[in-house]
Amino acid sequence: MGQNKSSMSKEKRALLDDLIKCIEIPSVSTDSKYKNDMYHCCDYIKAYLSRIGFEHVQNLDGGGYPAIYADWMHATGKPTVLIYGHYDVQPAESLEGWLSDPFHPEIRDGHLYGRGATDNKGQLFMQLKALETLFQQNQLLPVNIKLVIEGEEEIGSKTMPEIIDKYKAHLSADLLVVSDTGSLQKDAPAICHGLRGMIGFELTVQGPNRDLHSGSIYGGVVQNPIYALVHLLNSMKNDQGYITIPEFYEDVKLLTELEKDTLDSISFSEEKLKEDIDVTQLFGEDGYSFLERVWTRPTLEINGIEGGYQGEGMKSIIPAKAKAKVTCRLVPNQKAEELKSIIDKHIRENTPVGVKVDIEWNKCSDPFFIQPDHPYILKALSSLQSVFDKPVQLIRGGGTIAAVEMMNQTLEIPAILIGFGHSTSNVHSINENMSVEKFEKAIAALSNYYLSLGKDIIETNDYIK
Amino acid sequence: MGQNKSSMSKEKRALLDDLIKCIEIPSVSTDSKYKNDMYHCCDYIKAYLSRIGFEHVQNLDGGGYPAIYADWMHATGKPTVLIYGHYDVQPAESLEGWLSDPFHPEIRDGHLYGRGATDNKGQLFMQLKALETLFQQNQLLPVNIKLVIEGEEEIGSKTMPEIIDKYKAHLSADLLVVSDTGSLQKDAPAICHGLRGMIGFELTVQGPNRDLHSGSIYGGVVQNPIYALVHLLNSMKNDQGYITIPEFYEDVKLLTELEKDTLDSISFSEEKLKEDIDVTQLFGEDGYSFLERVWTRPTLEINGIEGGYQGEGMKSIIPAKAKAKVTCRLVPNQKAEELKSIIDKHIRENTPVGVKVDIEWNKCSDPFFIQPDHPYILKALSSLQSVFDKPVQLIRGGGTIAAVEMMNQTLEIPAILIGFGHSTSNVHSINENMSVEKFEKAIAALSNYYLSLGKDIIETNDYIK
Repeated sequence: MGQNKSSMSKEKRALLDDLIKCIEIPSVSTDSKYKNDMYHCCDYIKAYLSRIGFEHVQNLDGGGYPAIYADWMHATGKPTVLIYGHYDVQPAESLEGWLSDPFHPEIRDGHLYGRGATDNKGQLFMQLKALETLFQQNQLLPVNIKLVIEGEEEIGSKTMPEIIDKYKAHLSADLLVVSDTGSLQKDAPAICHGLRGMIGFELTVQGPNRDLHSGSIYGGVVQNPIYALVHLLNSMKNDQGYITIPEFYEDVKLLTELEKDTLDSISFSEEKLKEDIDVTQLFGEDGYSFLERVWTRPTLEINGIEGGYQGEGMKSIIPAKAKAKVTCRLVPNQKAEELKSIIDKHIRENTPVGVKVDIEWNKCSDPFFIQPDHPYILKALSSLQSVFDKPVQLIRGGGTIAAVEMMNQTLEIPAILIGFGHSTSNVHSINENMSVEKFEKAIAALSNYYLSLGKDIIETNDYIK
Repeated sequence: MGQNKSSMSKEKRALLDDLIKCIEIPSVSTDSKYKNDMYHCCDYIKAYLSRIGFEHVQNLDGGGYPAIYADWMHATGKPTVLIYGHYDVQPAESLEGWLSDPFHPEIRDGHLYGRGATDNKGQLFMQLKALETLFQQNQLLPVNIKLVIEGEEEIGSKTMPEIIDKYKAHLSADLLVVSDTGSLQKDAPAICHGLRGMIGFELTVQGPNRDLHSGSIYGGVVQNPIYALVHLLNSMKNDQGYITIPEFYEDVKLLTELEKDTLDSISFSEEKLKEDIDVTQLFGEDGYSFLERVWTRPTLEINGIEGGYQGEGMKSIIPAKAKAKVTCRLVPNQKAEELKSIIDKHIRENTPVGVKVDIEWNKCSDPFFIQPDHPYILKALSSLQSVFDKPVQLIRGGGTIAAVEMMNQTLEIPAILIGFGHSTSNVHSINENMSVEKFEKAIAALSNYYLSLGKDIIETNDYIK
């Protein structure tokens, strides 16, 4: 544990202890070498849930890493809230750039640093600590609560479709609440009414059966698989940021007046972002504002590329193989499965001569959307506002939480996304962190929300999808 | 040591012993972790040269790995032959695909397998064993011999310009002989009258200061350095194999009738090559024959590329950085320094917005050319032909031996390239090897050449550059 330890009250520290222990478990779902840590983390959270008062604590098995289920269903006549979170985290392979070990959290200047500090262990524990507080204060909860905490969010919620299908009855509820998004303001949360979907694939280009000398006898007559990959990737997006795969944009829906107004009400400092990430110029699709680009337009990004010689110095070869990892973010009304066909077709039709191409698809997710004036959303806005000094904004998200859209579709319940992250939280990056003050306020705000949901009965029929 | 050991006569084995011990030293010049091995290899060869009868055995220092010099200058009135070779080898990092350890040579089915078995340790020892044989048979050599064996050929002969300049007097000679090329026929050597030059660079594209989440707040508004690199590389060569950098082809000279005839006299099985490297289709610049493409046209190849997440599974990021290693082969009358300016300008003018680009140039080399009817070449052809059953061809080479062109230019002597490699030798690739029978015949043929050079005096004034 880090410096500034002494400056924090014993009570504050205690509130963080369970979270810190959870972050210390490197539950990286994308890399199989962390398999034991994944199960360890799952068991750790289950033990915690039993301890604070939850019942029926169990694994939901879909064939991959289990999701955790628990419930407390004794608020007769009150709504049932399904709370979703995830216990897996993004990789943090190297210490390069991390000021402290990503899996040995440290508190510095009022922030807790570690992988998962915000995404999602930190935000999950905001929810759990709010419920623990309500249990402690009243020996009961103001609403019925079901928890579903999955272990595969960072790998596209691979087996969540199976889990949701198989345990549909367990998961039935009146609304879904999720804290796995962010806010544009550092000191206040935001409610998110739309998320982008995602599809991802690995593209492997196989050239000759071995690396060849780039000079004698091969240089000029053999297709270079790295160049073939470059031409293929180039054919998918132009240098103006426009995706050039035919039919890619076909199902993108135009924004309504209400959506446009909601977007226009939000100001965002592009200058601050540029400074934060140290680029001289932002870059995106022509003809759209900053927030339209990140929230309402699809993307196609290369997340990783490799091929040939990557060591020190030079090696004059035509390499045997090259590959790239690509993901697309999707927006309403694009459908992940349709986009996969469209991209697959484009790649087949544009594969350069002299190489073989293989496409391996990752699990995918449709985009999510809920009307910005849904009653459960308006209620959440006022509950949050009572705790935070700054205005709680109604935003959309550029990211993807596959499970949200699945549950939204399969369980036919509205999803309320209350997000406490921020760009300075560095989710998916080095030095991920969470403000300790925000953690405390979030616990109070979420308690308020559940108390208020227990008080009023909201007529939502008009809004159910 | 491998199998089939017993099936080889003691005498044959003895002929290979010094070479095998040399291959066992992993003298990889491009990777600094092999630094000690480089010096070890240098010392090993020097000890061998002293043992067989050479004098003035010494290092020539140019600031990098030393070149080895040795001479025997007692053939009064006879020509002085400068023989060039190199003791450094290409990397062979992994055992993937190697049937035996690249640095523990093994003889299988009449071939010696190991890194450097052909390029260049094997061919260097053909020369050295020919001279050792002449020493043993006559206690003297038929011509004056100077040896220069460098340690930086595989990294573009970085400090050879300094060495050649500094030791110009040491290296003065009537002709340069080099065995570091190949033949189109497995069972016969070839004489090479042209080589391509080379320039190489590493291109680094820096985007944001850290990997960013590809969804929320960044996905759609930040230039992806991998995509920027893809667009930049795409702007350099089109999908028809044509290099699209303005002025790139400007100084490429047209072939003379004699050169065309020499080219046309050579048949080459493209089918066999396709089968050997397992590609369904060859690919190159439109409008040129196979041999024109590999010997007389310039190339631009990506030798390696990397950026972003390369581990298991997916990681949905916009990465901070991407880089590519690129080399070009040059042909007469392109000049390396001019091409560097042309490429540098193109990259500066085509750098996508929102990223910073850095170019790091490797040492470069001009192309080499000698008239196919030069007397020293005709003499070499007949000497070789007396030993090999198949016709010894007059070819060009697609590769680059930087030192050859430097010595050709600086020392103003003709260079005779007698090459014993073949595509099945797998130089720069896995399972590099050399035919033991060819090794023996090469020793006899090279002895013949030096004996014949000692007999006649050739009038070469007309041909000196």
